Amino acid sequence: MTDQSHNEIPAGAVSLADYERLASERLHPKAWAFLSGGAADEITMRWNREAFDRLQLLPRVLRGAASADSRLELFGRAFSHPILLAPVAYHRLAHPHGELGTAAAAAAQEAGLVLSTLSSETLEDVAAVAGPRRWLQLYLQPQRADTLDLVRRAEAAGYEALVLTVDAPINGVRDHERRAAFALPTGIAAANLARYAQLPSGGLEQLMALAPTWEDVEWIIGETKLPVVLKGILHSDDAELAVASGAAGIIVSNHGGRTLDTIPPTLDLLPSVVSQIEGRIPVLMDGGIRRGTDVLKAMALGASAVLVGRPIVYGLAVAGPLGVAHVLRLLGDEFAIAMALTGCATLADIPRANLIRR
Amino acid sequence: MTDQSHNEIPAGAVSLADYERLASERLHPKAWAFLSGGAADEITMRWNREAFDRLQLLPRVLRGAASADSRLELFGRAFSHPILLAPVAYHRLAHPHGELGTAAAAAAQEAGLVLSTLSSETLEDVAAVAGPRRWLQLYLQPQRADTLDLVRRAEAAGYEALVLTVDAPINGVRDHERRAAFALPTGIAAANLARYAQLPSGGLEQLMALAPTWEDVEWIIGETKLPVVLKGILHSDDAELAVASGAAGIIVSNHGGRTLDTIPPTLDLLPSVVSQIEGRIPVLMDGGIRRGTDVLKAMALGASAVLVGRPIVYGLAVAGPLGVAHVLRLLGDEFAIAMALTGCATLADIPRANLIRR
Amino acid sequence: MTDQSHNEIPAGAVSLADYERLASERLHPKAWAFLSGGAADEITMRWNREAFDRLQLLPRVLRGAASADSRLELFGRAFSHPILLAPVAYHRLAHPHGELGTAAAAAAQEAGLVLSTLSSETLEDVAAVAGPRRWLQLYLQPQRADTLDLVRRAEAAGYEALVLTVDAPINGVRDHERRAAFALPTGIAAANLARYAQLPSGGLEQLMALAPTWEDVEWIIGETKLPVVLKGILHSDDAELAVASGAAGIIVSNHGGRTLDTIPPTLDLLPSVVSQIEGRIPVLMDGGIRRGTDVLKAMALGASAVLVGRPIVYGLAVAGPLGVAHVLRLLGDEFAIAMALTGCATLADIPRANLIRR
Amino acid sequence: MTDQSHNEIPAGAVSLADYERLASERLHPKAWAFLSGGAADEITMRWNREAFDRLQLLPRVLRGAASADSRLELFGRAFSHPILLAPVAYHRLAHPHGELGTAAAAAAQEAGLVLSTLSSETLEDVAAVAGPRRWLQLYLQPQRADTLDLVRRAEAAGYEALVLTVDAPINGVRDHERRAAFALPTGIAAANLARYAQLPSGGLEQLMALAPTWEDVEWIIGETKLPVVLKGILHSDDAELAVASGAAGIIVSNHGGRTLDTIPPTLDLLPSVVSQIEGRIPVLMDGGIRRGTDVLKAMALGASAVLVGRPIVYGLAVAGPLGVAHVLRLLGDEFAIAMALTGCATLADIPRANLIRR
Repeated sequence: MTDQSHNEIPAGAVSLADYERLASERLHPKAWAFLSGGAADEITMRWNREAFDRLQLLPRVLRGAASADSRLELFGRAFSHPILLAPVAYHRLAHPHGELGTAAAAAAQEAGLVLSTLSSETLEDVAAVAGPRRWLQLYLQPQRADTLDLVRRAEAAGYEALVLTVDAPINGVRDHERRAAFALPTGIAAANLARYAQLPSGGLEQLMALAPTWEDVEWIIGETKLPVVLKGILHSDDAELAVASGAAGIIVSNHGGRTLDTIPPTLDLLPSVVSQIEGRIPVLMDGGIRRGTDVLKAMALGASAVLVGRPIVYGLAVAGPLGVAHVLRLLGDEFAIAMALTGCATLADIPRANLIRR
Repeated sequence: MTDQSHNEIPAGAVSLADYERLASERLHPKAWAFLSGGAADEITMRWNREAFDRLQLLPRVLRGAASADSRLELFGRAFSHPILLAPVAYHRLAHPHGELGTAAAAAAQEAGLVLSTLSSETLEDVAAVAGPRRWLQLYLQPQRADTLDLVRRAEAAGYEALVLTVDAPINGVRDHERRAAFALPTGIAAANLARYAQLPSGGLEQLMALAPTWEDVEWIIGETKLPVVLKGILHSDDAELAVASGAAGIIVSNHGGRTLDTIPPTLDLLPSVVSQIEGRIPVLMDGGIRRGTDVLKAMALGASAVLVGRPIVYGLAVAGPLGVAHVLRLLGDEFAIAMALTGCATLADIPRANLIRR
Repeated sequence: MTDQSHNEIPAGAVSLADYERLASERLHPKAWAFLSGGAADEITMRWNREAFDRLQLLPRVLRGAASADSRLELFGRAFSHPILLAPVAYHRLAHPHGELGTAAAAAAQEAGLVLSTLSSETLEDVAAVAGPRRWLQLYLQPQRADTLDLVRRAEAAGYEALVLTVDAPINGVRDHERRAAFALPTGIAAANLARYAQLPSGGLEQLMALAPTWEDVEWIIGETKLPVVLKGILHSDDAELAVASGAAGIIVSNHGGRTLDTIPPTLDLLPSVVSQIEGRIPVLMDGGIRRGTDVLKAMALGASAVLVGRPIVYGLAVAGPLGVAHVLRLLGDEFAIAMALTGCATLADIPRANLIRR
Repeated sequence: MTDQSHNEIPAGAVSLADYERLASERLHPKAWAFLSGGAADEITMRWNREAFDRLQLLPRVLRGAASADSRLELFGRAFSHPILLAPVAYHRLAHPHGELGTAAAAAAQEAGLVLSTLSSETLEDVAAVAGPRRWLQLYLQPQRADTLDLVRRAEAAGYEALVLTVDAPINGVRDHERRAAFALPTGIAAANLARYAQLPSGGLEQLMALAPTWEDVEWIIGETKLPVVLKGILHSDDAELAVASGAAGIIVSNHGGRTLDTIPPTLDLLPSVVSQIEGRIPVLMDGGIRRGTDVLKAMALGASAVLVGRPIVYGLAVAGPLGVAHVLRLLGDEFAIAMALTGCATLADIPRANLIRR
């Protein structure tokens, strides 16, 4: 869908905001609408960013921190830093290499990859080029047998966790997309789902009948030994229900502001979920992460790790796999600098008192 | 007053904001000034919108809601959804079909219609094409006999409720209108009032002598068996007086920001009125509704239903009756999606705790 | 200093904001800089306006108010409305008729006039065309004898009160003026002061030695039977000292934001001064009044009357004396409408509970 | 790096903001990026300014203040006003005279000069033209022997205090600089450091190994009789540690918003540091001072003096040493006016109750 593929890092691309700007210029307007757009007036999307920019960091000095060590462990696997790639549909809208390019770049940067159910390359093909830190995001399929087949394929292809999206039983009001009259171009499709029953093309009523429930969550968890992470939890009561259901982790997410507009920013909701969970399972978050200081703030408020979505496909659109790697490196370097300048030697040092000042 | 009538839904009209933009381009500047303008600096008009955008929705997940059921009953009549058309004067400023077009579209969408006293078609002609859910908005006339005649005509034409406007004894400071030197064009007039005594053209003093009082309200209520709804109540003490006067309902309204500038936004005042009324009579509201989430928020704060004014005439201006129907459908669909994504199966489920987060 | 004098009310001038815009187009940039400019970054000037726009009015309905009666009495003289002309220097910068035009227009609108010491016409010439409601603003002169002479001339010319400015011992940092390299053009001067000793052209030190003190205030009050009003009181402790000094009234004023930038807006300070004074002497206010609702808000917070400065000279610049009269009439009409729409029959009805909502 | 040197004060330069605008036009884009840029999105840089603009001054009147006396004493040396020049690297980026021009102008205005370790002229050459109020800012060098040599040179050259920067062990994320691909032009270098070991060009890890600690602070203090001031203290606990370490003073600073973005504005942090120190050692501050009222506010919140950085090099860029002197004079005059208009006769009068109103 891009007229040409780009494979060089442009001069002046020194931050994730630069990649966003460049992607808006290079992507086809329809692809840009689909990838960048949020729900309705995009208020939640804006709030996600503003929440980070409002939160203040109050550093201590002269603590003589040696170089920051950002290692962590999730579900038994070591990660060198807490920045994962969030699931985003149809990477081939951004670049002909699609998720294959993204996965290779993530592996090179040792970043965890969460592949979307709606990837434009099959999960098996992606697994072949991805690093070991790969998880599969799951949308429930109209038929339980198909959902189960997806789970078995994920297991077989070495995905180490399942990320079940619970906040999008139906699409949001995507005005940006609709104004651009977006439709998947020929040759790009949900590669994983080719053989499965399709979603009904009918109205809201039929779609809602397929909306996942806590019962579905428990069923999935019972069917696999992989850890199941619930993505889209916002309310602390739902966080408690997640633990009760046997979920292995939670991602505090408002779907990048793409479902219901005027949902609060995820950063504002993170503390109450963290406080409810009290460390029983990892709490991750996404939504608006664009700076190393954003990662630090999320960690300081109790996140175990963060996920980054749109900037990854912007990197892919601007400079292919190199761009993805560059985006990850920029964010990682900024995070290391933020740790150093706040005197945090390890991730465990981050959530200490008085780093955050409201 | 429009150079040509438009009768097709334009590409890119996917939200009520799009209709506003398109109407501003297609309406004659004088008609635009009259229909879109507010009082003075239009601060209240802006606040009406901002109040909705500030209020946050905190959805629950995995509740397995079947398709949302938005039915309600008002004054013994069933409505399929809680979105009514607010009274707006002189629809023929927007389209040659005027209120006839609007009423037909409302009927097609099963939406309640509140016809303005100042309609450019007679209430009898409108009744002939309108659906059963039709109410008549009432301005007191200089002569009580004329007011009574209007009431009798409404009864005879099958209007099911009277909406007495109580907040506009005189016009506000309509700078936008005055700058555009708006005057009713030839051929457009208050069709219902042709045979009645005219308002004095004199100054403020004479107009104020005609300002309605609680005594007038009680007189009207005593004269008709139709339910009488008071439109323009903002203060909880006035809401209590409304119940005492025998009013069948209340519309919390600041006249779309067209009377006194810097009146608070209606959404901010709704809770105290609802709390005062405690369900004794229905409390409706208008002012700034542009999104399905706005409807949801008003309902969550206790509104029985909402009214939409300007977007209706924008739809009429942009695409005639089709445009009105499209505006109603867009808003209705957004509301259904908002109910589904917040897990509300019926209107009664909406005002539950923790949906709204300030 | 204007290239031509304007003497017709322009189409589209329907509010004081319109006059400001038109004046900015018609005044010589130097005169515009002097008349419109504030101190430094003009933050206080902006705050003065914003304070009014933030304050909300919560009207009651159906009170059957007859036409609003806005009469009041100040120092034994009846006024038909509480809107006075604030002292502004050098009206001939705006129009060849200077203060003669302004005074005639004020008289026609029955508005109180406060003539500046720094008027470009003599106070005697102005008195000849002014109405009875005329006060003289007073700057202390370098020589007490000269100050006393000014007082005696004011008494002789029938000025009914003296307004002693206490907040501007030295000029503020008037960047706008300095950037425009403003200087009084040939033929415009402080007509009243021709025969007096000049202010030293030297530095801050010399100017400050002339700064007025409470002792000067008491001296003036002892020398005249005219009521002496102190203009520029902001702190409630200074308000108390004003009463103790024998002042007949107070004007809460920050000099239109022209002295020290980031002084709070006068509307925000008014309540504490009113509360301190408890009705012992009248408390007037100026700063940012542009709308009838602004007048209502100031009255509701306890002001006895308000003064309007810049809009008067903008009216003069745009349309000569007719423009001044139009500005006064627009503001007066808006105030009457605001009283009517909030159900206030007299000024005494305004400061009642729950009109203002923060 | 400037195409030509400028040595005349331009018309219209009446405030520090004017100098900023003019410098942005006259400096080479790379030099502008280096000198004006902040970290990341420059949020802290913006907050530094906004904090001053939000704080309100509530003046008293009629106090008859004689001309303001702004004298103070720091470390035994008398200063005629509390405005010092903050350390800024490489003044020759702004003007061929570099720090020699700046120092001469500072001397002429009797302003204290804090020379940067990274000056483009040697500290000895600068001392030869500077006034007696000269301090040297110190970055720890990779080798202690080199650091000590710097200290001894400062002592020998008559610097009266050392300012140890503690908040910048590594560079911040300077996007502006990186986007402009800034590098020191040929002929401009850190003149003081020519003979010392260089910082490792390697990664974050090596740089952090050199990060100063409290132990280094104590070592320096033990090695010199000069007062040692710690620059970059933000947290009150670190302020307490500074006293314990033997520091002679503190500068509350966030490095002009150039290290970690979203650090709070220094004005907001000043009160807690002042409250912690309770007068035991002087507390200075920098960050965002652009107006005389800003100086007054910092003093009212307890600062002993303030430092100004960017405006100094903007003055140098716009008009050479004359520009520096003009910037200092503008700021000093504004401060004197602010003292006079708030009735403060001496610096000791400034921090009295109710000057500041939040």
